[in-house]
Amino acid sequence: MPSIMAINGFRASAVASGMRYKDRLDLGLIVADRVQAAAGVFTRNVCQAAPVIWSRQRLRGARAILANSGQANAQSGQEGLEDCRLSAQALAGFLKVPANGILLASTGIIGPRLNLPAMTAAMPGLVSSLSPDGLGDFARAIMTTDTRPKEATAQAAIPGGPDIGIWGAAKGSGMIAPNMATMLGFVLTDAAIEQDLLDGILRRGAEASFNRVTVDGDTSTNDSLFLLASGTAGGPPISGGPGAKAIEEAILGVLLSLARQIAKDGEGATRLVEVSVIGALDDPDARKAARTVAESPLVKTAFFGADANWGRIMAALGRSGASFDPYKVDLDLDDVPWVRSGQDNGRDQAASRVMGKPEYRLLINLNAGQASHSVLTCDLSHDYVSINGSYRS
Amino acid sequence: MPSIMAINGFRASAVASGMRYKDRLDLGLIVADRVQAAAGVFTRNVCQAAPVIWSRQRLRGARAILANSGQANAQSGQEGLEDCRLSAQALAGFLKVPANGILLASTGIIGPRLNLPAMTAAMPGLVSSLSPDGLGDFARAIMTTDTRPKEATAQAAIPGGPDIGIWGAAKGSGMIAPNMATMLGFVLTDAAIEQDLLDGILRRGAEASFNRVTVDGDTSTNDSLFLLASGTAGGPPISGGPGAKAIEEAILGVLLSLARQIAKDGEGATRLVEVSVIGALDDPDARKAARTVAESPLVKTAFFGADANWGRIMAALGRSGASFDPYKVDLDLDDVPWVRSGQDNGRDQAASRVMGKPEYRLLINLNAGQASHSVLTCDLSHDYVSINGSYRS
Repeated sequence: MPSIMAINGFRASAVASGMRYKDRLDLGLIVADRVQAAAGVFTRNVCQAAPVIWSRQRLRGARAILANSGQANAQSGQEGLEDCRLSAQALAGFLKVPANGILLASTGIIGPRLNLPAMTAAMPGLVSSLSPDGLGDFARAIMTTDTRPKEATAQAAIPGGPDIGIWGAAKGSGMIAPNMATMLGFVLTDAAIEQDLLDGILRRGAEASFNRVTVDGDTSTNDSLFLLASGTAGGPPISGGPGAKAIEEAILGVLLSLARQIAKDGEGATRLVEVSVIGALDDPDARKAARTVAESPLVKTAFFGADANWGRIMAALGRSGASFDPYKVDLDLDDVPWVRSGQDNGRDQAASRVMGKPEYRLLINLNAGQASHSVLTCDLSHDYVSINGSYRS
Repeated sequence: MPSIMAINGFRASAVASGMRYKDRLDLGLIVADRVQAAAGVFTRNVCQAAPVIWSRQRLRGARAILANSGQANAQSGQEGLEDCRLSAQALAGFLKVPANGILLASTGIIGPRLNLPAMTAAMPGLVSSLSPDGLGDFARAIMTTDTRPKEATAQAAIPGGPDIGIWGAAKGSGMIAPNMATMLGFVLTDAAIEQDLLDGILRRGAEASFNRVTVDGDTSTNDSLFLLASGTAGGPPISGGPGAKAIEEAILGVLLSLARQIAKDGEGATRLVEVSVIGALDDPDARKAARTVAESPLVKTAFFGADANWGRIMAALGRSGASFDPYKVDLDLDDVPWVRSGQDNGRDQAASRVMGKPEYRLLINLNAGQASHSVLTCDLSHDYVSINGSYRS
């Protein structure tokens, strides 16, 4: 468990609203005393949930985030957007901020309308329990099939400026895939940052973290990642230079930790595997090769069984669309030279030992060029099938 | 079980060679008295197995097919091609035909070299047991994780010509995906057909059958589909007209039956689902939409659990790359109008009933254009994971 810290200028809380399940934290709130800049990246799925449509247009002027689990408010039509407006208005009344200052995020079943009465009835309790120490509860309230809350924190020293803090939480375990990985993510910092820099930090950070995680190749209707900076750490807003670099590195560290926690908590996952392709002809080839291997059900079941069947990796590479010579491919499992020039290298036992570990790296050298790409993935287990065979029940 | 028939001009046999497993039919032989025309289509995987490279160049002049299960002879380098040559030469000596007249097909583990001593030692028994009634044994010899042999037969009347017979067998249950579906397929006919017509029939037939089956999105290194015509039914070789049409329809029927049997016998499969997209903007969109839904692990586990969770289908469509309005999509399960204009239609119980059946159709109308595409798929079950977690053991 990462240590939970408070971030200057933010309060949070969570309650069990009963919107869908009884006695389960399912509604979380983050409120900022003030917000200097707010950034967001959202799902690229054609089917965009109502809270995605709502929040995308309201990043400027954001003051609070309301997140619920259990109901996605997706494919819910005009009624879904109306439910966004009504829930934001109700909360705005309690918080004394404009309704357009409230960002919304939902995760859960697609289709049904939001249980607005239960949500609204829970708001007074949610608001009255706001606390600088409430971030851990918020992280628990956004869980669905997650088996544990996902939090990460970082601190950084701004050269010639104040120390700053960063906190992040995420949920996501099924429907995880690049473009952009399913999940809800919330990152807060007390740093003073210019809006343009914050936008760039989040865009680059998401690309290097959440967009390189895959559990099952599916991408959700609700993916949202928010980054709010309060500026309460003090100092002039940073727009570049060494201060910007320090902030970006610290935020990236938080994003990478959250992405890693998501892959490790993939539905039914028992192992975390980094699939690294090097020596690809170009970037698109590197990406195709890494993703095809990382998403192949046959490869992922071999990961589960710790079955050192390298032929499945060759077969996945061969259908990926990447250009390479099958007899120039090298495969390594951690430090074991598993396959050389596309053929077995007599290390079956050592390879099986690596594959029995909870975390390892599969390195694929296509020996066709200079491009590289890495993807974090997990194995495909019996429990994935159990969890997803009856998610709604 | 389809009825087994003999095809004029062909003999077949199978033995348990012990190449990899004991006491399991694993080596099959088909010999033609004469071959008038032979066609083949092969895997598009960059990693092509040695028997694929061998057979692709030897369709003209083919007289026999030797097929084994248990060892794929893939990623086996120059030695793999040399093993092809040696096995063909050995068999050619027994059959008194040129080595270049022998087509080869292998399925099984990628990597290890072919067990040539065991294969060669089994050849005398294989040749001596050749019989017009041996096709059923051949179909059993090519099975790997298949739970049952797959055969299909058809008869057709050539207008103004002889009656003809068609027999086909296939193997394949994992690593099944379009382009071109994993499998070995063998189709024989006694019809007299011109070479060009035969090539076209096989190309179009594979596109309409095997290339529309998906079990797990993986495509093998060894996929091969052969079509041999002996011409022993008599009459002049057909090159067009109503005779060609009759033959093509009959052969397509055999291919469709085999493709359906493959999807139904997908590893661990408990249900066969036809995913039909209509109303797509264009053909590529129709194909992308149908394949993405048919290959989505989240959709396939919902098929397994008979969970009428239509949001997963919308989410898969939304990431497929197809262009459509989420609020114009209609979904039907057999005759149940499940989703209308992208929203629930109050038929949850009826939909669950259809999803509990062993076979049904999911009809997706994108209402964006006139293009359509269908894919056969199966569910993703616990047994898929069990089978593939330790395939080699």
